[in-house]
This record gives sequence, structure tokens and C-alpha cells, in this order.
Amino acid sequence: MAGTFKIVLIGSGNAGTQLGHAFSQVGHQVLQVYSKTIESAKILANQLDAAYTNELNQIDQNADFYIIAIKDDAINKIPASLNISEKIIAHTAGSVPMEVLKDLSPNFGIFYPLQTLSKDKTVDFTTIPICIEGSNHETLYQLKSLAESLSTSVQEIHFEKRKMLHLSAVFVCNFTNHMYTIASDLLKKEGLSFDLILPLIRETTEKLNHVSPVEGQTGPAIRNDQEVIEEHLGALEENEDYQNIYKLLTESIQKKN
Amino acid sequence: MAGTFKIVLIGSGNAGTQLGHAFSQVGHQVLQVYSKTIESAKILANQLDAAYTNELNQIDQNADFYIIAIKDDAINKIPASLNISEKIIAHTAGSVPMEVLKDLSPNFGIFYPLQTLSKDKTVDFTTIPICIEGSNHETLYQLKSLAESLSTSVQEIHFEKRKMLHLSAVFVCNFTNHMYTIASDLLKKEGLSFDLILPLIRETTEKLNHVSPVEGQTGPAIRNDQEVIEEHLGALEENEDYQNIYKLLTESIQKKN
Repeated sequence: MAGTFKIVLIGSGNAGTQLGHAFSQVGHQVLQVYSKTIESAKILANQLDAAYTNELNQIDQNADFYIIAIKDDAINKIPASLNISEKIIAHTAGSVPMEVLKDLSPNFGIFYPLQTLSKDKTVDFTTIPICIEGSNHETLYQLKSLAESLSTSVQEIHFEKRKMLHLSAVFVCNFTNHMYTIASDLLKKEGLSFDLILPLIRETTEKLNHVSPVEGQTGPAIRNDQEVIEEHLGALEENEDYQNIYKLLTESIQKKN
Repeated sequence: MAGTFKIVLIGSGNAGTQLGHAFSQVGHQVLQVYSKTIESAKILANQLDAAYTNELNQIDQNADFYIIAIKDDAINKIPASLNISEKIIAHTAGSVPMEVLKDLSPNFGIFYPLQTLSKDKTVDFTTIPICIEGSNHETLYQLKSLAESLSTSVQEIHFEKRKMLHLSAVFVCNFTNHMYTIASDLLKKEGLSFDLILPLIRETTEKLNHVSPVEGQTGPAIRNDQEVIEEHLGALEENEDYQNIYKLLTESIQKKN
């Protein structure tokens, strides 16, 4: 690692919490945690042995990096009066350009970990792609150094590509996870354990190491097994929402293949 | 293992191929492979050192088990004239009752591996749940013995529950895999490698060992991050199909949480 850094975390939600722990674990010092909810700032700060505040004008001025991990549409509401002189400030959002930070410091950039982060689930950052951008060469270099202290997969990726990565992430992570939620609901109704389909879930992803998803597609939609499809739609009659999802995705698979 | 069995495989598609290899690997003898496409029967039969045919009236009468792995809606079209006396016959379909086999032998049942099977992707059957049913005690016992020779997770599961398992499998496997296909399309358009989101895909499933899918949900839908959602819908404008999927799944996540 290039060195240890002093960091202020702006945001103590899912991403802030996991980044805070990751920074701390590799030896950086989280000086302070900001959250508009003081209780949330305090919980994370206590875990990281850091100070905390819910006032942006109380932000510690002695950090090397100010890492913003708050809701995407709140990022551009951070006031230009934030007093961090010319320190490096970066946000962690997939779909927001770095230029929203330009009034806060001349040295701004992106620190976007391509991962699903929840407060209560520790992740191993070593293999997580971290996408970075910087407003100038030195800022990029410093953000790269910070990112490489966590991960072996650091990529300089500009806005259009980052947006597409984020959109793809919504499909493979959030939407996929919703498929798991639906299955969990359905199984519960029949008194079946979710554990029964875990091996199938694992193989569905493991398969990606061997065949492309379009080649690996199986099931009633791609077999055009109309009897099964009708039966499944019938079984979903009580839940119009799930029924519509089944219909739309079945048609989409059939169109694609 | 209880013993080695002689097996005739009816069907040489994805499931037939993988089951054939799995049976063979644990020491059973696949006597013969049937497919209505002689070339397909021949390819698998050669791999398993078995005979092959595309005529149901040429089926070998000396097997212990006749395992049917053909399209669901073709199962009940196997003629009652199939000459297997009182041997055990079972099909591998998730959504078809075992009774469709009742005219073929008094000893019929289900041998349903809850897994995604492709011709070219070998799977480890050891942890795959195999759901069985039998028309009588002895048939159930024999099918259990065959299933336990492949897997440590053998379950007697009746029709209604099996159907729900199959429906859940469509969501967690086929629909999830379609999410991967869509992401792969989107990334390709921007010249990005699919490998970049593999760690995210892995973590999305790994997370299921720690939190339930409904608790583990993240992303713009559940954060109700309307700006990002609008931007994503805009980015999908060229593909109405993907745009509709994004809309429907976003709404469904928001309703659920």
C-alpha cells in the first residue's frame, strides 16, 4: 500500500458503513463520519473510533479524502460553502457525473465500488472493481492509490461507461435479488424451505464461468413449453404483479433466443 | 451406494445428457439412449458406451429404470404400447404429475433434479436436491436408492409442492439468467467486459447465506431514487422490451418493500 490516509466519510448508510470498515481495516484513519441523522453517524463513528457530526459546517478540515456516500440525488445539494480548501472529494454513485462536485474543491473525482453493500453484511473488497475518475492527473493518482489499498481491480472508467455499469448492476443484482424475493414468497406459501433452491441459484451463477448467459438459458420459456407456461401463470393468479413479471420475462426470453 | 442399476434414458437433451453422465460416473450402466432424433441419441450413446434408437418399440426391455427426460408436453404422448412390462419408469419434469405414466407400467414415479442442466456444462450432482415420488412403496424405495447414488439431498415431494419448486426455479434461474443476458447486452454496447460485474453477481448470491433477499435488497428502486430511475429508463430507450422490464421490476420492488 502506498500509505495511510485520513478520511472523512460523508454518509453512514450501506455504502458508507462498508467503506468505512474497509478503509479502517487496511489501516487508514476515518477521522469523522457525517450523516444528517446524528444517531446513524454516531453508530458508525463509534465502530470506527471516529468523530461524528450532522452539521456540514463542522466537517473536519484535516483529511486527505472526503468520500461522499449518500443518496444520488442528495450529492448535488452539498453546499459549496463546505470548507475543505483544496482537498480531494469524491462520490461513490454510479449514475452521477463527477462535475457535480466541482464547486466543492478543484480536486474532485469518483470512487465507485461496483458492489451491493448492506450495513450488516461485510464484504471482501479485494476483488471488487472500484471505478475511479479524477478532475486532474494528481487527483486521479491519489484516488487510484486509495482504491488500490482496498482492491486489486481498480479501473479508470468515465461517466458514460460507468452509467452503463450501474444500469447493468441494477439488472444483475437488484432485479435478480427481487427474483429471489419472489421465489422465497412462493416457497413459503407451500411450506418449502428457501434452502432447497440455493444449489440452483449457485449453479446459475457458476455456469457463467463456462457459458455465456444467452447460451446457458434453460427452462419453459426457451423450450417454448406452452403447457408449463400456462400452468405457471395459473399458479400466480393470486398475485397479478408476479404474473405480469412472469409473462414479460417469458416473452423477452423468447424474443431474445 | 445400494447397488448398480441398468438404465434406459428416454431423451438426450440437456437433462438426459447430464443425467446419463452422472449415472455412468457413479457406476450404473446406461443400456440404451432413445431420442426421436437419431443423431442426438447416437452422440450421447457413444459417450456412455450405450446402444441407441429412435424407435420407441425398439426400447431395451432389460433395464431396471426407464428415465424420461423429454419436453414436458411430450411425456404424455409416449404410447402405452411401450413394452417395459412392470419395470420402473419415471420422468424428470417439474410441472407434470406422475400419473401421466400410469398406462406404461404399474411402477411409475418422479425423478426431478432441481437444477439447470445444459448439454455442455457438467454439474456436480452431489448437492443437487432430487425430488422423488413413487406410485407405490417399492417404486419409491427404488427411486430413492437411485437418487441417493447421485445426491445427498433426496426429498420425497408431492406434485403441488414440486410444481411450486419448479415455478420458483424459473424465477431464480431462468429469469435471473435473463437479467445476466440483458446486462451482457448493455455492457457490450459500451465495450465493457461482462467479467467486470461477475464479483457483483457472486456477492448477490453469497449474501443469501447471511440475509434474506427482502432484507438484502439495495439499489435505486428501494431507495426510491427517482432521478437515477429516470436516467436508466432514458438509457434503455432504444430497447422497449428492456425498458418495460426495468419499469415493472422497479415498481414491484417498491410495492414489496
